[in-house]
Amino acid sequence: MQTLRVALGERAYPIHIGSRLIGEPGLILPHLPHKRVAIVTNEVVAPLYLERLREALRGAGVEVLDIVLADGEEQKNWATLNSVFDALLAARCDRGTTLLALGGGVVGDLTGFAAATYQRGVPYIQVPTTLLAQVDSSVGGKTAINHPMGKNMIGAFYQPRAVVSDMDTLGTLPERELRAGLAEVIKHGLIRDAAFFDWLEANLQRLLAKDPEALAHAVLRSCQIKSGIVAGDEREEGERMLLNFGHTFGHAIETGLGYGAWLHGEAVAAGMLFAADLSVSAGTLPKAEADRIGALLARAGLPSGAGGLTRDRMLELMSMDKKARERRIRFILLDRIGAARVSSAVPAAAVGAALACLA
Amino acid sequence: MQTLRVALGERAYPIHIGSRLIGEPGLILPHLPHKRVAIVTNEVVAPLYLERLREALRGAGVEVLDIVLADGEEQKNWATLNSVFDALLAARCDRGTTLLALGGGVVGDLTGFAAATYQRGVPYIQVPTTLLAQVDSSVGGKTAINHPMGKNMIGAFYQPRAVVSDMDTLGTLPERELRAGLAEVIKHGLIRDAAFFDWLEANLQRLLAKDPEALAHAVLRSCQIKSGIVAGDEREEGERMLLNFGHTFGHAIETGLGYGAWLHGEAVAAGMLFAADLSVSAGTLPKAEADRIGALLARAGLPSGAGGLTRDRMLELMSMDKKARERRIRFILLDRIGAARVSSAVPAAAVGAALACLA
Repeated sequence: MQTLRVALGERAYPIHIGSRLIGEPGLILPHLPHKRVAIVTNEVVAPLYLERLREALRGAGVEVLDIVLADGEEQKNWATLNSVFDALLAARCDRGTTLLALGGGVVGDLTGFAAATYQRGVPYIQVPTTLLAQVDSSVGGKTAINHPMGKNMIGAFYQPRAVVSDMDTLGTLPERELRAGLAEVIKHGLIRDAAFFDWLEANLQRLLAKDPEALAHAVLRSCQIKSGIVAGDEREEGERMLLNFGHTFGHAIETGLGYGAWLHGEAVAAGMLFAADLSVSAGTLPKAEADRIGALLARAGLPSGAGGLTRDRMLELMSMDKKARERRIRFILLDRIGAARVSSAVPAAAVGAALACLA
Repeated sequence: MQTLRVALGERAYPIHIGSRLIGEPGLILPHLPHKRVAIVTNEVVAPLYLERLREALRGAGVEVLDIVLADGEEQKNWATLNSVFDALLAARCDRGTTLLALGGGVVGDLTGFAAATYQRGVPYIQVPTTLLAQVDSSVGGKTAINHPMGKNMIGAFYQPRAVVSDMDTLGTLPERELRAGLAEVIKHGLIRDAAFFDWLEANLQRLLAKDPEALAHAVLRSCQIKSGIVAGDEREEGERMLLNFGHTFGHAIETGLGYGAWLHGEAVAAGMLFAADLSVSAGTLPKAEADRIGALLARAGLPSGAGGLTRDRMLELMSMDKKARERRIRFILLDRIGAARVSSAVPAAAVGAALACLA
């Protein structure tokens, strides 16, 4: 097991990465104000890992409530959030109850937001079971639900007490979700670490074959890059925006197609290609580097394009993105692989050019 | 005008108390990251003060969106909150938009929670127009909505950037709401300042007659006491609980009768009487002091009892209160007028005795 520490002062927390961690109550117990937890998970993950986690905790004398949600991005809404509140209230959970998010990004984001707002805030711990959640959504304290008019529009910055990433859970992860998680892994190389991008090019087959050592390295390096950025800018007022590389386009695709049509990582992959093309159009990234990015994403089996959305629809959807500032859209551009920056001076013509492949 | 500063480090903010403040954009402008605000108010307050606030801001070059809600505690729910999000999204408000809460406690609590969660947090400013909001709910950053199973069950600790308390707004305040606000004023004397309680006994008639000088003193002293406590314990892990004096009983009354049947301050007044009786039963408060408390609350025209709720129903409702810890209820007890403390060791028999007047 390897442990990283996210340096956020009094909100600092550890990320544990390794095998057989779900059965280790010792990683969770030190963070519980009372020996009472509510595990929030979904109907896909519950049959695989709920009993192992629950029994490990019960064996350590912890009182455990289960809350099992339906699966899917379309669950990341107020009605499902409220069903969590209902269950917590029915069980009379108080402010000393800790929520455990056992699942992927949807479970993690929703459970984190439930923790942020139940009785004005209770502790929570992330136990991510997908690659995407392990490398991205479980780290950094962004919690949210979706609104019909936009993804992640309602939420909070609220840090977990710990993250427990058990590599064994990736063994049951569907291949499509593995590939989607790789999109965020590749993003971390693109924005901050050219050597890691090189490593990903060289080791992609090992990752797709679920080589445990390769996966653990990809998770560790992703968490290092992400947590380093988050530690310097918790509330996304500056550098943290770099983590949104590809996301302005990606969120537009997700909103336009309806949540759940594409996986988040798939939309981000397509969005990163648009963002790379935009960087080329804006004159910051050499065309050859954009081609290299496209090649790696294609080898990872990730989609390009916008699923049939027109250029006009994409532009409309992007103007609603919450990263809009004074009605101008900020973009994250690449100067080269491994170096990104925020730009609010992108000419409209360049955005149009990046979307030129669309109808 | 007098200005207090709530000492919360990087979240510190001023409370301005005085006359003709709503027409003073200079109190608001320094706190806006962009010259864009959304004023959230209700249909009772809007005809009285919305235009004055809006025109003052527009005159200073601020773009203003109005969101006018229906009136009443029953609006403090998810549906109304979501209508605020809908309006903000429809107007494409981004993270640089500041919310202004113009109204009483319901508008302030709901707007504060909307600000805490819209796009993971935007700035907000409180412009309280009721005595209760000026002395209590606008100060300290507690935001929330109600859940069918309990009051303020869903919320966040989220501090405003400023509080602007215009005494002139009390001129239009219905007498019943003025009296309800006095309950929280009296609470501040009870828990922390015997001399202020003496002053309230001596000046109650001036307050009920809306003497502006007396009201300004009551608001100022209340804000001093409350903000001093909040500064030492923002997230209510210790001393801040003292501000809940009377509230365990009061919240039970509000939940049991249905939100809106009694005003919050009325329920708190009745709750403070129960809490004073409990302090007598528990042997901490002399009976004569409890009688003195009852006399002042009665002179202020505030109710006692529980509106017809039975003793068993009250006990059931209190066990759901979010201040329950490990299923034991904590109470705030008085040692004397001006000195309160938290007790989690109240015998069940004493609680029963305090509720003995109920069926």
